[in-house]
Amino acid sequence: MNNDTICALSTAPGQGAIAIVRLSGIDAISVAGKIFVPHRKSHPLSEQASHTVQFGDIRDPENGALIDEVLVTLFRTPHSYTGEDLVEISCHGSSYIEQQILRLLLRYGCRMAQPGEFTQRAFLDGKMDLSQAEAVADIIASESAAAHRLAVQQLKGGFSKALNDLREQLLNFTALIELELDFSEEEVEFADRSQLSELIHHIDSVISRLIDSFNVGNAIKNGIPVAIVGETNVGKSTLLNKLLHEERALVSDIHGTTRDTIEEVLVLDGIQFRFIDTAGIRDTRDHIESMGIERTFNKIEQASLLLVVLDATRDNESLATFISQITKKTAGKKRIFILNKADKITAGERKQRIDLPFPDSDPYVFLSAKKGEGIDLLEQKIVEAAQIPHIGNNDVIVTNMRHQEALSMARTAIRRVIDGMERNLSGEFLSQDIREAIFYLGTITGGAITPDEVLGSIFSRFCIGK
Amino acid sequence: MNNDTICALSTAPGQGAIAIVRLSGIDAISVAGKIFVPHRKSHPLSEQASHTVQFGDIRDPENGALIDEVLVTLFRTPHSYTGEDLVEISCHGSSYIEQQILRLLLRYGCRMAQPGEFTQRAFLDGKMDLSQAEAVADIIASESAAAHRLAVQQLKGGFSKALNDLREQLLNFTALIELELDFSEEEVEFADRSQLSELIHHIDSVISRLIDSFNVGNAIKNGIPVAIVGETNVGKSTLLNKLLHEERALVSDIHGTTRDTIEEVLVLDGIQFRFIDTAGIRDTRDHIESMGIERTFNKIEQASLLLVVLDATRDNESLATFISQITKKTAGKKRIFILNKADKITAGERKQRIDLPFPDSDPYVFLSAKKGEGIDLLEQKIVEAAQIPHIGNNDVIVTNMRHQEALSMARTAIRRVIDGMERNLSGEFLSQDIREAIFYLGTITGGAITPDEVLGSIFSRFCIGK
Repeated sequence: MNNDTICALSTAPGQGAIAIVRLSGIDAISVAGKIFVPHRKSHPLSEQASHTVQFGDIRDPENGALIDEVLVTLFRTPHSYTGEDLVEISCHGSSYIEQQILRLLLRYGCRMAQPGEFTQRAFLDGKMDLSQAEAVADIIASESAAAHRLAVQQLKGGFSKALNDLREQLLNFTALIELELDFSEEEVEFADRSQLSELIHHIDSVISRLIDSFNVGNAIKNGIPVAIVGETNVGKSTLLNKLLHEERALVSDIHGTTRDTIEEVLVLDGIQFRFIDTAGIRDTRDHIESMGIERTFNKIEQASLLLVVLDATRDNESLATFISQITKKTAGKKRIFILNKADKITAGERKQRIDLPFPDSDPYVFLSAKKGEGIDLLEQKIVEAAQIPHIGNNDVIVTNMRHQEALSMARTAIRRVIDGMERNLSGEFLSQDIREAIFYLGTITGGAITPDEVLGSIFSRFCIGK
Repeated sequence: MNNDTICALSTAPGQGAIAIVRLSGIDAISVAGKIFVPHRKSHPLSEQASHTVQFGDIRDPENGALIDEVLVTLFRTPHSYTGEDLVEISCHGSSYIEQQILRLLLRYGCRMAQPGEFTQRAFLDGKMDLSQAEAVADIIASESAAAHRLAVQQLKGGFSKALNDLREQLLNFTALIELELDFSEEEVEFADRSQLSELIHHIDSVISRLIDSFNVGNAIKNGIPVAIVGETNVGKSTLLNKLLHEERALVSDIHGTTRDTIEEVLVLDGIQFRFIDTAGIRDTRDHIESMGIERTFNKIEQASLLLVVLDATRDNESLATFISQITKKTAGKKRIFILNKADKITAGERKQRIDLPFPDSDPYVFLSAKKGEGIDLLEQKIVEAAQIPHIGNNDVIVTNMRHQEALSMARTAIRRVIDGMERNLSGEFLSQDIREAIFYLGTITGGAITPDEVLGSIFSRFCIGK
């Protein structure tokens, strides 16, 4: 257990109406009590009940100087976020005041919390398992409906439950195998090997499904990288602005968030798309060859989806040349072909364009970026191309690289068991691999002994104050 | 009274561990109750006591979708910041979640709060007077110890009390005058005119002291503008960096604040100094004449204090020329002359420099910006030059332009009273001016009827959510 008391600013830095300074640990209430003077003198902090709020002053005990009028909320162990005594000081949102309060707390025996240390304590106190703790960081970082839903589900223990089910099945399996082992000298096969084989194959398929879900989970959590490519003056920037602008307006309507953070990010149907900066491509002249700069194509490599913008007013021949060249150069990528400036061509020309050599797998869209026509259809095609399956409330999706790696390690061990069973190895060998699989699954929820450095690296991703 | 319920994000925007969405008004508790599902089902929000905290989920009532796990704190009328029913939802600090919660609140009948509207309601409900409400914005904006102290004092009602004392004296005066008036036909002078004259002169001096304090109050609140001037290569940037760097290190030690906001701001002895960008001056060549660009000197005009940097290794003659020219060009400004590169001159040269034609009122400092020698002494001279008197806990300082103007209007009326008494005008005339003075003092605390547009302009300076 922790013997020290930590403190930190828990709200976002910067000017706000309210800010919260949080402290947690064995001395949280007594330290807060030293600097807090309740307005109703008959109500000292130490005598207050859990989950109650007191109004009063923060004062420097050395000279009585008033720092701020605040609300202090008490959470008594074990009924707090960390499981320890926890105090929240709700002060005015001025960095000067936050600083002064933290200085006083440090003076009276708190220390500054490390990033994620409140949540780490919640984990160490058994308030949540490791994958739930990680979900807290994901929730704070999530910027789209889908990413948020996955993080919330993980916080609620959906993923943990799936892992516990797996763990139980593996324990069940190992118990049967070890029973066989105990009686091995008597040459008795207690465990029905064909039934065991079915069980281990089932476990393998569940783990494999989880591993496969990481592709989707990762796309949802980190956004789907998209690149806009095309020759100069075909309207790429106009299109990008059109796509981004509408979403931005929506976001800034309700929220005072800075535009920088949503720069080049588009959320469609709850899924986040990140536009990769392909400035090099945007400046190309006339012909596809001039795009052949390696660096630019490396950028395109990072994209899961390409929006290939064409000028629909050009003749079919030059368009066809461009299409076949870009198709060759970006083999294996998903693409959407965009026939821009479609408002400037005749119905006859439009028919001609349909005959262009688009690959069968790639959709094409007529639009006018300038007039905003066809944007809705393009957005629909983008969402379809992302191939994010509908995710039900009970579907478990892996979103975390660490979990993905642990699952892969577990599967490797499981595959050795399957292999061993086919080669009729004795239970002794199988049992060892099962235990390894259980260990790796355990590292995800933290049930297995997790080394300090792993914990450190997990919680250092958090923001201070969480 | 307000019939609607307002909501807003009350913590600073951006990622944080915790964010707070606040709602206030007649339906605050019932609206919050629609989207909040307590984890202990036996504890519906509507039945909870004031100043208690409940743990539970925010869910979309239409589909049950989980938005976040939150803490909800209840403040029942009249024991809340606004005086109305007030609810604080403490959620994870993700802009996505904040947005979703606000969307639900809007759907169930809240409207987005205007900037400062929570505090405006507190004022309208009589929880604080207008000068206290203004202090709330000042507290949030204060970035130095002195500015913070003045704002806190104003919030606590120090200024309001001084005004009420004045008001009482004026009412007392007017009562005596009107008594005289009632019996005027009987030619009786109830009020001893010499005593009345003493009283009104006292009031005049108190108001004048308050008006004069605005110079100090404004300097403390908005910082003291400082310009660094001098020829090229005398070490101006090195000096500025040296001055700023130490303070920065101190600030960023404890606090994660962005460096941008404290760029070119220096807090010494709790007083804020703002460095005005005088890039024009910094690029001058060789001689003072090239500085004669009007725009640059307009910048210098804004400064209350000039740091004139000299290269101590130059000969006395050219230094003397520069000093007399800059002194002439910046007449009426406070200046500190800085003999930089003092580590590179001999003791003999040092003695010569002391004979330079520094104006008697301006101090000079030998230092080496590069080596950091003499910086402490310079800082001390800067603080002295700021001429901020020591402010005791009970001193009342005016920091607000609006208050300053109201006090000036009140004084003009008082001066008319004094003038009228000297000319032996009847009480009738005096009484009218007294009432005018009382009216203007009343606009400061809002005791006098304050027009809506005045209220609007006061509260629009606030951040949203306060």
